[in-house]
Amino acid sequence: MDKINGTIINENVAFADFKNHDGEVVSIAGYVHRIREMTGFAFIIIRTAKETIQCVYAPEFSDYRLDEKLCEEACVKVYGKVVSSKDAKGNDRYELQIHDIKILSLPAEQLPIVINKKQLDNIQLNTVLDLRPVSMRNPKERAIFKLQEGIARGFREFLMKNGFTEIRSPKINYAGAEGGTNVFKLDYFDKQVYLAQSPQLYKQALVGVFQRVFEIAPVFRAEHHDTSRHLNEYTSMDFEMGFINGFEDIMNMETGALKYIMNLLKTEYAEEVEILHADIPEITEIPAIKFMDAKKIIMEKFKYTPSDMKDFDPHEEELLGKYAKKEFNSDFIFITHYPSKKRPFYTMDDPADPEYTLSFDLLFRGLEITSGGQRIHDYHAQVEKMKKLGTNPEDFETYLMLHKYGAPPHGGLGIGLERLTMHLLGFKNVREATMFPRDINRVTP
Amino acid sequence: MDKINGTIINENVAFADFKNHDGEVVSIAGYVHRIREMTGFAFIIIRTAKETIQCVYAPEFSDYRLDEKLCEEACVKVYGKVVSSKDAKGNDRYELQIHDIKILSLPAEQLPIVINKKQLDNIQLNTVLDLRPVSMRNPKERAIFKLQEGIARGFREFLMKNGFTEIRSPKINYAGAEGGTNVFKLDYFDKQVYLAQSPQLYKQALVGVFQRVFEIAPVFRAEHHDTSRHLNEYTSMDFEMGFINGFEDIMNMETGALKYIMNLLKTEYAEEVEILHADIPEITEIPAIKFMDAKKIIMEKFKYTPSDMKDFDPHEEELLGKYAKKEFNSDFIFITHYPSKKRPFYTMDDPADPEYTLSFDLLFRGLEITSGGQRIHDYHAQVEKMKKLGTNPEDFETYLMLHKYGAPPHGGLGIGLERLTMHLLGFKNVREATMFPRDINRVTP
Repeated sequence: MDKINGTIINENVAFADFKNHDGEVVSIAGYVHRIREMTGFAFIIIRTAKETIQCVYAPEFSDYRLDEKLCEEACVKVYGKVVSSKDAKGNDRYELQIHDIKILSLPAEQLPIVINKKQLDNIQLNTVLDLRPVSMRNPKERAIFKLQEGIARGFREFLMKNGFTEIRSPKINYAGAEGGTNVFKLDYFDKQVYLAQSPQLYKQALVGVFQRVFEIAPVFRAEHHDTSRHLNEYTSMDFEMGFINGFEDIMNMETGALKYIMNLLKTEYAEEVEILHADIPEITEIPAIKFMDAKKIIMEKFKYTPSDMKDFDPHEEELLGKYAKKEFNSDFIFITHYPSKKRPFYTMDDPADPEYTLSFDLLFRGLEITSGGQRIHDYHAQVEKMKKLGTNPEDFETYLMLHKYGAPPHGGLGIGLERLTMHLLGFKNVREATMFPRDINRVTP
Repeated sequence: MDKINGTIINENVAFADFKNHDGEVVSIAGYVHRIREMTGFAFIIIRTAKETIQCVYAPEFSDYRLDEKLCEEACVKVYGKVVSSKDAKGNDRYELQIHDIKILSLPAEQLPIVINKKQLDNIQLNTVLDLRPVSMRNPKERAIFKLQEGIARGFREFLMKNGFTEIRSPKINYAGAEGGTNVFKLDYFDKQVYLAQSPQLYKQALVGVFQRVFEIAPVFRAEHHDTSRHLNEYTSMDFEMGFINGFEDIMNMETGALKYIMNLLKTEYAEEVEILHADIPEITEIPAIKFMDAKKIIMEKFKYTPSDMKDFDPHEEELLGKYAKKEFNSDFIFITHYPSKKRPFYTMDDPADPEYTLSFDLLFRGLEITSGGQRIHDYHAQVEKMKKLGTNPEDFETYLMLHKYGAPPHGGLGIGLERLTMHLLGFKNVREATMFPRDINRVTP
């Protein structure tokens, strides 16, 4: 609290708090988002860290004199009186009667795009991305990444409440976690090293230390195709848990995490949910069906002939999404028991039928957002499976320390943060939900 | 809750909760940490996610029959009755009378090192690091990284409480943040790209969006020297805040964060603090002195002749640490106003004396753990300073979008997580506080 000319100033009051300062003098700091000059007065909209606030300038109550110096994207501190009125629906509306404006900085040039509308209008995605440092100043663009913070935060908070330890695995790796394809090579003195494709091998090792671990961190994939779904760098939300009774424990933990996340978004990120018109799913239980049963449904119910009986194409995922909505009224569906041939070497085969695995994918509104499952924990079984798949166990000596010196039954999963954000917001391109996307054509800004 | 032969079993009870289950039957899951066979009975120590629990085996109350099959590092589920007794000091002690043991998995080989003592005894650091997936199973080693989780968590929690948004800047960069030295180059299709040395340019850009941002993420430096202080990959805890009144706002925010972190360690990580005999500093206020005054103290009070009047060598940092302790009874001291020549191009010069900057380092017990300061926010001033330093503004076109289109007065800092952990625990080598260190000689495990 500060005083100017004997008047008490409540410094840096959040808009949500205006109702507690009705009639009082407060200060706010932010960008000049918009200036609308009217006859004899003007609206000056200030963009703060979280919201836009309508301020009214008029010579009769403003000591400040508005001239052409004040422009959009100037950074200012505004002093003024909070005044309330009723809107058409009878709700309280608050605005600020400007007493004074202190200009903190001025831009050197006008913005190259219009950012002070509700959303960016008719601007090509490539331009939005080229100009990310300024296009994100648009309230809707900003809300995307605030909401994304909430998703990662929910994942982390839920797991910490459930006894998970946060780990930070190295991104400079001596071998690719899932074989040598699609890895970026690095000039590292005289050594051959790669950027981490996933924290897989490290999170498994750390189950032997902390029992339950998670990580939210960048991963890197040298994707050659430039599609709307792929990125060469993205944020992977991973967890791994030991002493499980079966891979269902992993699915239950994920269900819990998703419930927690969606609830967090609805409560703590309600403003962003509203700005984005985000359709936050209701989760009670998530149904699960076996891979081969899913194939049957696709062929018999939807009369669609799959091209590959070992995996799903995007259209099949969509059909399964429709099936989940219709049969179970669920936005999510687990598909379990994927064919052994399509899963990585660490996946545990189903003892009841080793052609299939104790693994799962999670589809959200017809799009795969998670792969997970139980891992092999027996040393001899892991070495044997590696050999069968043509992987040399000697290349994975450190990884196999876990198994050699004792591993509990364990499993885990990974979720792509940007992909989940994209689909939750109904975007068609993952770049819309990626702050600074990297693909085969883009490494800037 | 489950029943076996009519007896109610409290499943997976944490040791801290044993006091609420005195006389009841519980289950715990973990590794066999140690087996001590005595005459007619045996102690079996179980290592869970957080602690070791003493269990007692005796044929008279154990249905299970101990034989040579059960070995150290087996993963087991133990069912037994909680029993309490008094220790020499009269405190309650709890242990488990084993009813049954279910073996979940067995190791293929015995451990190559002894991990089941209080600490790793007489094992070379290189061996500890080579065997990290198993050496970390030692309770003291494990505690280091649990405590490290707490440091990062405290930083994050404090900043989120203070209106900061968590960001995730890209690690694949088109240009080095602080010039082209010490960056790792990447084979990225036909493009010249680098691994991020720091999130500097991105966190500044995002001050224009969220006002206050932070990131905890890996950074990469192609350090050629193999010292006890340097790593080629480490975790950087960064924040940047806009609409500041001066660089003192940054120092105050850091003081608050450190207070919060140390308090969190003392409360939520008390077991780890005890295992590690960590000397957690008390923080009230952190003193600040100017760079040139610090030089005077070094020369006049300590009679030491600096070799470089533009920076401190490690011995000078130690002397300043001693000075802070003696004069202010503080483990921390801010050194402000570093010479302009030694700070990066984005540092704001002191208008009162442009040979010096509005910047600071924070020393903790005589070691630098933070660099920070106010940044230039005016476009023309930033372009001019770049030119003066021989940096081509055209190479930083995206970065300069912030300044060109309006930037608030802002500043920030970075803290190396592993270095802070090292010094807090009194280690001499940062690798001891790094889970999987990367240096010029080491990229495994």
